[in-house]
Amino acid sequence: MRADIITIGDEILIGQIVDTNAAFLGKALNKIGVEVCQIRSISDNKTAIIEAFTEAQNNVDLVVMTGGLGPTKDDITKHTLCEYFNDTLKFYPEVMAHIEELFQKYVKAPVNDLNRLQAMLPSKCTQLFNPHGTAMGMWMQKENTVFVSLPGVPFEMKYLVLEQLIPRIKETFPLPALAHKTMMTYGLGESIIAEKIADWEQSLPQHIKLAYLPNLGRVRLRLSAKGTDEIKLLNEIDTFFDALYPLIGDHITGFESEESIELQIGNALKTKHWTLATAESCTGGALAALFTKNAGASAYFKGSVVSYATDLKQSILGVSAETIAKHTVVSEPVALAMARGVLLITGAHVAVATTGNFGPTIGDADAEIGTVCIAIITPEQEFSETFCFGKHRERNLQKTLNKALEMLLKTLD
Amino acid sequence: MRADIITIGDEILIGQIVDTNAAFLGKALNKIGVEVCQIRSISDNKTAIIEAFTEAQNNVDLVVMTGGLGPTKDDITKHTLCEYFNDTLKFYPEVMAHIEELFQKYVKAPVNDLNRLQAMLPSKCTQLFNPHGTAMGMWMQKENTVFVSLPGVPFEMKYLVLEQLIPRIKETFPLPALAHKTMMTYGLGESIIAEKIADWEQSLPQHIKLAYLPNLGRVRLRLSAKGTDEIKLLNEIDTFFDALYPLIGDHITGFESEESIELQIGNALKTKHWTLATAESCTGGALAALFTKNAGASAYFKGSVVSYATDLKQSILGVSAETIAKHTVVSEPVALAMARGVLLITGAHVAVATTGNFGPTIGDADAEIGTVCIAIITPEQEFSETFCFGKHRERNLQKTLNKALEMLLKTLD
Repeated sequence: MRADIITIGDEILIGQIVDTNAAFLGKALNKIGVEVCQIRSISDNKTAIIEAFTEAQNNVDLVVMTGGLGPTKDDITKHTLCEYFNDTLKFYPEVMAHIEELFQKYVKAPVNDLNRLQAMLPSKCTQLFNPHGTAMGMWMQKENTVFVSLPGVPFEMKYLVLEQLIPRIKETFPLPALAHKTMMTYGLGESIIAEKIADWEQSLPQHIKLAYLPNLGRVRLRLSAKGTDEIKLLNEIDTFFDALYPLIGDHITGFESEESIELQIGNALKTKHWTLATAESCTGGALAALFTKNAGASAYFKGSVVSYATDLKQSILGVSAETIAKHTVVSEPVALAMARGVLLITGAHVAVATTGNFGPTIGDADAEIGTVCIAIITPEQEFSETFCFGKHRERNLQKTLNKALEMLLKTLD
Repeated sequence: MRADIITIGDEILIGQIVDTNAAFLGKALNKIGVEVCQIRSISDNKTAIIEAFTEAQNNVDLVVMTGGLGPTKDDITKHTLCEYFNDTLKFYPEVMAHIEELFQKYVKAPVNDLNRLQAMLPSKCTQLFNPHGTAMGMWMQKENTVFVSLPGVPFEMKYLVLEQLIPRIKETFPLPALAHKTMMTYGLGESIIAEKIADWEQSLPQHIKLAYLPNLGRVRLRLSAKGTDEIKLLNEIDTFFDALYPLIGDHITGFESEESIELQIGNALKTKHWTLATAESCTGGALAALFTKNAGASAYFKGSVVSYATDLKQSILGVSAETIAKHTVVSEPVALAMARGVLLITGAHVAVATTGNFGPTIGDADAEIGTVCIAIITPEQEFSETFCFGKHRERNLQKTLNKALEMLLKTLD
């Protein structure tokens, strides 16, 4: 069972938007055992779309496309589907009724001719009903290949994939089992790991594939297996991963979870009935934002003080002028004092504090660019650590967030 | 001058990562007048890569690929290039010296055989030197098509594109001029705009193309023009945009800037010698994070209080229990009191405060899900507004951030 993903829109090709739809679709299809062979992003252009259809027809069983279903002139996917399928557009009264309802409820403007066009779909299509928007999904078959067209608005697309497309694929196609698991390592480079595990890698059977995914000091090792029984595949993967402990055990930090590390921390906090606060200088609120973006965070997250200006570390968090003068603002004593301060004013049980210099210039601190101090206080322990992350601001933020979350999860475990 | 972008890596196809490299490349190529015809993401698989090369060879002048240049077994781009170009790998001593230097400086481990392989490049390639990593870029030509291979690590790829690839393309190819400009509108749906501007759209000449980009209550209108003189094209675009004011003038909020709205706000603050603080409930630190991710933010950003728990609105920001009891926690009086509170404790000149209920459950507030109050105080005015954004948490966060930034920029203008 092989699939291509086609995302349609000039805004992707000129880099005006990052194509997150393709990644979502890739993940969702992969999860049910569909092998995604290719992702293509192409122009809002009939020739380009027909070419992509023709190539996919020869190579894959399923084509999932997004985009080009809006009401305006540059949206040509439906017309192109009609041309490819030798079909014509037909008026669907139930779609029209739905569009009218949406307009009455949200747009508060009368439906116009362009909206009416959205109720026109190819006569041969099976409609995938989109309750959240005016563009319906479509499912069409030509010879052995199914073509599915979905709206490009991520929210509407996601709903249609989860509620309509995936169940229908499962009904229609016999699917193999796929299994993936990703081991996380810290502190060894990709090439050094590869050297240490060369014999192990050699011993992997044909149906299990290894990938190295290096990123900012961490290397993730992903095993992907294909077969008929997911549980059996996962067991096989686990057995192979177990064999890595004698080889690189000191550097294995765990497995990538379906759950984000913030959610894992949240669960650990809830289990202990502890609440969390952050005191952030260099991370500037990004740590708090990671927690609060999750629904239910108020069960364990109390709040944050972003003391970006040095004087706020004193006036709000109560870090003493002496501590700053003696150790400089980027120092473990200041990080610990910030953590203590935020515990005091928020009443939280656990605090994480960050202070550092991300560059590009030295600023208030004397610390070298890339120096970051992280402090953690829980009812059971307090500690701090200093890191030298390098010269690049954007990476320094990401590395600090990764490190702080990693330290916190480890402490709560 | 036409180009294809090829990103190589199974992690893209299974949705483990979002392909941001393609968007960066698309933007960079487009900017210098290269038309990107297609973005393809393919597997780490020799057959798939050769197929993509062959197709591109027939269609485009330039192929830029990323990924598959690491030191491990799953990295096969170099070998595939050799096969496609009927070439062999050659040892480059200067690359080896650079790899050894990087290892000495950062890895603190001896160079191994796999790293030594990274100093092997196709003998026919022109090397694009990568000072930040061990994988070099490569430039190779076959008949009329140039193939460029870049490492997949975004940071290294970006450097090579800006410092090496773009200048070399400009030297090698005659380039047409391209111009894009994007007008932002608020408050009208895509189809209503399309109806109002139908005659105008009809009047656009062949070389100027219109695209509608709807997103969360805003519709952006992009005009793209192709010709020989960028200035002339931009003037043409401006003339066409001017003609839109009589048609939809009330809904035009400006033009998309190369500069993010946070940076525009930062510049406006610096001009007025004002500093900013945020008091965040529902945005949970995300607003502060948007400002502090930019280098130089300390010139105008003082800090933030994320009072996620209701009691912190009182204890840290000094919102009175009466105000909360009388108006509920999601209310304009509370937002204004939060803004006042954060001004007081940070000494900033300008404050933005957010309080709302993003859902999925009602929580502490009585407010309907999707209700958000935003307050702004400057030395010259204070005001607040209430919005009903809808039922979807993720979208509510994005809409609130957009709205708060928009309100703030407008106030400072």
